[in-house]
Amino acid sequence: MLRIIFLLSLLFALSNASVNDFCVANLKKAETPSGYPCIRPIHVKPKDFVFSLGTPGNTTNIINAAVTPGFVAQYPALNGLGISTARLDLAPKGVIPMHTHPGASEVLFVLDGSITAGFISSSANTVYVQTLKAGQIMVFPQGLLHFQINAGKSNAAAFVTFSSANPGLQILDFALFANNLPTDLVVGTTFLDPVTVKKLKSVLGGTG
Amino acid sequence: MLRIIFLLSLLFALSNASVNDFCVANLKKAETPSGYPCIRPIHVKPKDFVFSLGTPGNTTNIINAAVTPGFVAQYPALNGLGISTARLDLAPKGVIPMHTHPGASEVLFVLDGSITAGFISSSANTVYVQTLKAGQIMVFPQGLLHFQINAGKSNAAAFVTFSSANPGLQILDFALFANNLPTDLVVGTTFLDPVTVKKLKSVLGGTG
Amino acid sequence: MLRIIFLLSLLFALSNASVNDFCVANLKKAETPSGYPCIRPIHVKPKDFVFSLGTPGNTTNIINAAVTPGFVAQYPALNGLGISTARLDLAPKGVIPMHTHPGASEVLFVLDGSITAGFISSSANTVYVQTLKAGQIMVFPQGLLHFQINAGKSNAAAFVTFSSANPGLQILDFALFANNLPTDLVVGTTFLDPVTVKKLKSVLGGTG
Amino acid sequence: MLRIIFLLSLLFALSNASVNDFCVANLKKAETPSGYPCIRPIHVKPKDFVFSLGTPGNTTNIINAAVTPGFVAQYPALNGLGISTARLDLAPKGVIPMHTHPGASEVLFVLDGSITAGFISSSANTVYVQTLKAGQIMVFPQGLLHFQINAGKSNAAAFVTFSSANPGLQILDFALFANNLPTDLVVGTTFLDPVTVKKLKSVLGGTG
Amino acid sequence: MLRIIFLLSLLFALSNASVNDFCVANLKKAETPSGYPCIRPIHVKPKDFVFSLGTPGNTTNIINAAVTPGFVAQYPALNGLGISTARLDLAPKGVIPMHTHPGASEVLFVLDGSITAGFISSSANTVYVQTLKAGQIMVFPQGLLHFQINAGKSNAAAFVTFSSANPGLQILDFALFANNLPTDLVVGTTFLDPVTVKKLKSVLGGTG
Amino acid sequence: MLRIIFLLSLLFALSNASVNDFCVANLKKAETPSGYPCIRPIHVKPKDFVFSLGTPGNTTNIINAAVTPGFVAQYPALNGLGISTARLDLAPKGVIPMHTHPGASEVLFVLDGSITAGFISSSANTVYVQTLKAGQIMVFPQGLLHFQINAGKSNAAAFVTFSSANPGLQILDFALFANNLPTDLVVGTTFLDPVTVKKLKSVLGGTG
Repeated sequence: MLRIIFLLSLLFALSNASVNDFCVANLKKAETPSGYPCIRPIHVKPKDFVFSLGTPGNTTNIINAAVTPGFVAQYPALNGLGISTARLDLAPKGVIPMHTHPGASEVLFVLDGSITAGFISSSANTVYVQTLKAGQIMVFPQGLLHFQINAGKSNAAAFVTFSSANPGLQILDFALFANNLPTDLVVGTTFLDPVTVKKLKSVLGGTG
Repeated sequence: MLRIIFLLSLLFALSNASVNDFCVANLKKAETPSGYPCIRPIHVKPKDFVFSLGTPGNTTNIINAAVTPGFVAQYPALNGLGISTARLDLAPKGVIPMHTHPGASEVLFVLDGSITAGFISSSANTVYVQTLKAGQIMVFPQGLLHFQINAGKSNAAAFVTFSSANPGLQILDFALFANNLPTDLVVGTTFLDPVTVKKLKSVLGGTG
Repeated sequence: MLRIIFLLSLLFALSNASVNDFCVANLKKAETPSGYPCIRPIHVKPKDFVFSLGTPGNTTNIINAAVTPGFVAQYPALNGLGISTARLDLAPKGVIPMHTHPGASEVLFVLDGSITAGFISSSANTVYVQTLKAGQIMVFPQGLLHFQINAGKSNAAAFVTFSSANPGLQILDFALFANNLPTDLVVGTTFLDPVTVKKLKSVLGGTG
Repeated sequence: MLRIIFLLSLLFALSNASVNDFCVANLKKAETPSGYPCIRPIHVKPKDFVFSLGTPGNTTNIINAAVTPGFVAQYPALNGLGISTARLDLAPKGVIPMHTHPGASEVLFVLDGSITAGFISSSANTVYVQTLKAGQIMVFPQGLLHFQINAGKSNAAAFVTFSSANPGLQILDFALFANNLPTDLVVGTTFLDPVTVKKLKSVLGGTG
Repeated sequence: MLRIIFLLSLLFALSNASVNDFCVANLKKAETPSGYPCIRPIHVKPKDFVFSLGTPGNTTNIINAAVTPGFVAQYPALNGLGISTARLDLAPKGVIPMHTHPGASEVLFVLDGSITAGFISSSANTVYVQTLKAGQIMVFPQGLLHFQINAGKSNAAAFVTFSSANPGLQILDFALFANNLPTDLVVGTTFLDPVTVKKLKSVLGGTG
Repeated sequence: MLRIIFLLSLLFALSNASVNDFCVANLKKAETPSGYPCIRPIHVKPKDFVFSLGTPGNTTNIINAAVTPGFVAQYPALNGLGISTARLDLAPKGVIPMHTHPGASEVLFVLDGSITAGFISSSANTVYVQTLKAGQIMVFPQGLLHFQINAGKSNAAAFVTFSSANPGLQILDFALFANNLPTDLVVGTTFLDPVTVKKLKSVLGGTG
């Protein structure tokens, strides 16, 4: 019994040490460049470390696909841990359009079906495209344009992770056509013709 | 045609810029603290970015489980990208024994079956255990002791990723009992009794 | 005199310390994720730390503009120092087309003339456009699509720096149209029509 | 006199620059992944940069040893500086049991007496053990299991530093036996027998 | 129209993702080691990304020179982006005295005139001096003593950037002579004679 | 026996994982920005992790003091581990002159005697001086000018560690006076008078 007391006194001394093994985000507070302030460890529960991406996203849309993010904003336990998650669902003919993640590299693991994925290098503009089946993985280096397309006739799905708790997601068509960037600026900086730009702005809800 | 020439001359000027979008590891060269030297981009092929973890590992062993790593040593395209992969397979009663990854946080996505997983915080020694089904995710903060156990009666499998291309894997029992660390040092630093230590050394191939 | 000897003996002891204040790149050796191996300090000369971006680039091309990089590949002294440089020249009607730097934020300082510059945020797709005159600065956060256009009737120029020795440069049109990415993949992932894609591929030297 | 005024006006202009040379922790505010918010520099005093580890810890306990941390929680001036401290005291037969620091490498400097210290590599499970006398240093790479034992017959002491302001400290026995982790989970993940587990739980105050 | 709704519903789902592309500093809140807390993106305006260094600083002072900083404290949009700015103005005979930036490397671009600049390596104490004309660049590695002097007979100016949003600026003479560091400590740690120290303290407003 | 074979087969599979727990420097190869290439783990011996700073440095010199570094160049096991060491010895009247470490913060632990130590903040030029006795610690933030002086009548000694394997050491007097930096440049950038500069150059072996 004495031993316990002695050991627990040691334990107590040590528990004064900071317990920042993790830093579950307090999303109500202002972010910092390194992430959100932490919830106090005493308020963190085991289930806070669990997130579910088991349910396919709704693919009844123009792209026949869905991206379901599990970034720090949805999954606060990832805050400060340098990693995050998402799920891709692609119905037949589904496509995750050309996009980038400004702040992270991506690893994609095919859960079901078959997916053609690719990225384009900077400067050399080399194309790296591969068709993947279930169980295969592809890595997309940080910040490069990439895409995923359903390569089969059935539904396809993938689990993806990123090398940051907040990778960002910039979808090319939304960036160009789903806002108020004036048509002449889009035309001038992409060499697309005004008719094409205006048509895509119309489809995607952009103005200007 | 003139336009093409002008544009290509611009293109050429830019291609003098370094093309280190990625750094596929040259595993034959000596590592550095930041990873391996890169293969020249001209020798990198699209399939270098692909890896397969589709095949279950062999679970016919004492732990009824297998860890199949896709770290930089197996999957050289991850070099420098701050992320890596592995597959866990757990037959019924399978267990991935208590272990740490010294250099990374881990995200686990359950592919099949049901898995009880947990980690223990430092200083406070709080236990965070959860039972996960297919499609659920759990995050394990860097460097903390954690484990995974098959919680069901069928095979279970998981895809895991890490926040480093080289997370490391230190399995507690192997660290304590599968080497020549003298029994008295193990006893003295763990408070296990010598009989227990010698028995486990015998099972795991340790000496001393 | 004795003092000198004593002090120099101290000096000598200290000069055994590593002198890695800088790490001028040896471009002939293979890169690592952290940059190139260093030239030995004894071979580094004062002029290695100097680079010139005083000469306007050639703007006689389809974009009436030029980007002259001073990245680590052109300016090896930047290796490992987390910063790099470039010069933009825009003749009247000149435009630096929509592009990203996958590995760095950018600061642009207008040297001459007037430049309209903008970037688009991810997720929210918000447009941040401003017209700048000489002496004004704009910052472009890492990895986001951005552009620069001559806003005046005379030549414009800018000095830009990046928060990495190797920021990368992915020009949208070149990534989509100046390589062998098949037209149907471009169409499928951008929602552009095949005629537009084929026309731009033709102008930019792409195939497929 | 005029010179002073001119120079001080320059000085004043510069003092508008941020003075974040240091960031003494405000421990009352919520942590972030990069550490605590800073106390305003005007409230920082010279003595805030000083800490004392001159007093031996109390070794009248079961391990005949004490760890006295000087981490950011005890020594707030370390916040954000990437370094922290601790003192080890080992009475005769004293032992710092097998443990890890999840977030830092460690350097140990022997102040008095003689210490046998060791760590075990991951994957290869190689043992690196050395006996050190006063004035000798040993480095323990991040996240690996390691221990220290008094190798002599008199008291031993060491000053240790870590490559993080908040290295963490996970003591193996406390993580396994000093909490409510169910005995069957400990048994299942360590291959220890239930009797041993229950005995150690009893000694260390664990339940379940 | 239905398409728009579907796409916008996708867009909505994605906009739940964190929008931390940038983190414009809220200077009223306490800093953290990674920078200031962010203003909410909805309150950020395009002009927040713009700063002006077009106006020469006042060089009517003892050094015939001025440093105008555009660090995070003056230019909050730089927060977390790893880069910052400043402008140097040197009237004839102007000099930016020997100084260091404790937290960043520096790139200097000469806008007008001619500047002699140099830095001194650590350990080897090697001098790297060069005279630069407009359009030339020099890089100063992090933390090393360096200086800039007007090398011509007309005004000179430079735009400089740093590899940190908060590089710091320690001017040697101000550090030694413009505070209450006792004369005997200055003498003892610099080997300057007391008369010299007291004279410079007098000029620079120091005491003690 | 079968169990051992099964377990060892698991062990074998895992040992294909990279074993970069540490990266003992191969000092014969060229450095990279992240440090030296690693010696292969198979050639690393337990004693490589040990270094000795038990012997006082030679203080029979003009400063009555000695700095004995244990940086990566002397202690290759520190490579990549983000920490390094040194020993200070100060005979009576000994002084470690004003200096900076361009790449690291420093923690000083007084081993013997009494030491007056101080640093000066940037921008505000605030002085932080304290007198320390054995067992006390002081932290010096990265890149700031600081010094240590023997505050007693007997020998003093300290063990210091740095938050980098290669912190650098720039001693002010050596940087200004122990090289070929022309006297007029020293005078012009420090406001010291030429007589003082030439005298110190003479004492410290400088020219010009």
